[in-house]
Amino acid sequence: MTETNRTVRLAARPDGLPDASTWTIADEAMPHPGPGEILVRVAMISLDPAMRGWINAGRSYIAPVEVGAVMRAGAIGEVIASHSPAYATGDFVYGPFGVQRFAAVRTDAKDHSDLVYKIDTGLAPASNWLSVLGLPGMTAYFGLLDVGALKDGETVVVSAASGGVGALVGQIAKLKGCHVVGIAGGPDKCRFVTGELGFDACVDYKADGLYKALQAALGDRRIDIYFDNVGGPILETCMTLLAMHARVVVCGAIVGYNDTSKIQGPRTYMNLLVQRARMEGFVVFDFADRYRQAQAAIGGWLRAGKVKALEDVRDGIDQFPAALNDLYSGGNFGKLILKP
Amino acid sequence: MTETNRTVRLAARPDGLPDASTWTIADEAMPHPGPGEILVRVAMISLDPAMRGWINAGRSYIAPVEVGAVMRAGAIGEVIASHSPAYATGDFVYGPFGVQRFAAVRTDAKDHSDLVYKIDTGLAPASNWLSVLGLPGMTAYFGLLDVGALKDGETVVVSAASGGVGALVGQIAKLKGCHVVGIAGGPDKCRFVTGELGFDACVDYKADGLYKALQAALGDRRIDIYFDNVGGPILETCMTLLAMHARVVVCGAIVGYNDTSKIQGPRTYMNLLVQRARMEGFVVFDFADRYRQAQAAIGGWLRAGKVKALEDVRDGIDQFPAALNDLYSGGNFGKLILKP
Repeated sequence: MTETNRTVRLAARPDGLPDASTWTIADEAMPHPGPGEILVRVAMISLDPAMRGWINAGRSYIAPVEVGAVMRAGAIGEVIASHSPAYATGDFVYGPFGVQRFAAVRTDAKDHSDLVYKIDTGLAPASNWLSVLGLPGMTAYFGLLDVGALKDGETVVVSAASGGVGALVGQIAKLKGCHVVGIAGGPDKCRFVTGELGFDACVDYKADGLYKALQAALGDRRIDIYFDNVGGPILETCMTLLAMHARVVVCGAIVGYNDTSKIQGPRTYMNLLVQRARMEGFVVFDFADRYRQAQAAIGGWLRAGKVKALEDVRDGIDQFPAALNDLYSGGNFGKLILKP
Repeated sequence: MTETNRTVRLAARPDGLPDASTWTIADEAMPHPGPGEILVRVAMISLDPAMRGWINAGRSYIAPVEVGAVMRAGAIGEVIASHSPAYATGDFVYGPFGVQRFAAVRTDAKDHSDLVYKIDTGLAPASNWLSVLGLPGMTAYFGLLDVGALKDGETVVVSAASGGVGALVGQIAKLKGCHVVGIAGGPDKCRFVTGELGFDACVDYKADGLYKALQAALGDRRIDIYFDNVGGPILETCMTLLAMHARVVVCGAIVGYNDTSKIQGPRTYMNLLVQRARMEGFVVFDFADRYRQAQAAIGGWLRAGKVKALEDVRDGIDQFPAALNDLYSGGNFGKLILKP
């Protein structure tokens, strides 16, 4: 075999935004699948805001990526060799293949973050299995319906509305008859969120006057569910506009991922008391044994044209560092996917 | 009738801690009960941290006390004249009688904060109806058991542990087999909390090293329920020690009542995500139609000697301003009650 495996490894933990010194990109020998393992040719890699947290030294909800290791990533690929009776050459699979062109992995991981499963490219295009049918989709689905306990016709606000999670949160809420307001950066994204995704309104957080703009978008309504992907002043502002018995779903806090000095608590949290409201965090892996259920539901909406998969696909494994940083500057437009 | 009614009225909204200019204390003509009203001789007045919020201009969960009005307070007293068929002279009642010696009130209020009901001084001494059987008791009971959804044997931390609410939260949690850590100001209060109230440990927040002291008090345990009466750095610290699926019950935020510059959001709130935890606010009035149930339960524990009513009773209506401010400096020892 003359092929080599091009990999992105963590060279050093970054202080702030990752840069050239954070990553080592190199050609390596092909991996060989051990007993029970499969060898996968990676077709598409998911780039997620949470990646920044994975390369910090401390454990949060998942163990950190070790310095020197291939960067962790969910990905899809084709099985090209199998030492597992459950998988055959030619199967398409989702798994923790990392930022590399080939991966040899076990298929019986107990940890939900290391789950491997076959995907049905007849049900939806392969890329969808990283977006609306992948972790962003699962995050939106369970965060909104289970953690948020959405009721038909409620008022929903979601930040990072043009991102992989936010776009689906709003579309599902619209399907459930909700009034949906997105928050996104810049007029182009806002136009997309209302025009293409069908949200009722979208507020540009980069413009002045977030509170007034959000208030105008809500009219007489107050927020039943605020689905928070960003933290910071946007979270703080949304908490002043909660309805009685509102739910604040804590999904992420992009604002602080690269600059911990920007992490702030919402000074307006006592609105939780005034409005008898709750704020709740979750980790999507906890719902792993119900992914199939969510994928069937979202797959049905996709085929019926009720939900759009919004994807921003980049080409070439060497683009990984730049593409990842786009997530933190708002340079992506939909779910960011890298073809290695 | 030669008697007069001594009253405490709100003279001006304070900026910061209330002072002499906040209140007008004067003798007035006796009130006369109108149709459907009762005239009550006020025996004991409840002083609550929440009072500071009631004299701000803005509405929070309850309308503000108007400038010129008698200060709002829950109180107990004896009916001395009745124009209501449901009440007779000599009945002891709880109601929104305010900081004054006599009150004429309707008994059919629809608003739960204005509820009037008879109390059974055979079941417990009158003062108990302002402490463990009154709003502090109801707050502790429903906040811990309903909002916090306490499970037997969990680990519970409560701030303002020697106050009217905190003392009962910890005692109920002990009854349920929990490991209970209080947070209080100063060694005297901490000794009382462990010695008299039977908490497993008490951390002095006025000493240095809150995090380390709390960690030591918890040992290998993490916090299943943090019942927060104070906000600020104590809340922020407790959120770093949450167990999986923990609940943070938002009951109050004494730290910011008199100095809004001290209001801060907990910068550690992303622990809600890591621990799949929730933070939830409540207002005790929402549980008004279940007060009888809670009073029966707590009354039973009182008679069985399983719960102590911790009361700090002050004499004389003119002591109201000083006694109230004691609540904010930590100068009280248990539920603060004023005999007018």
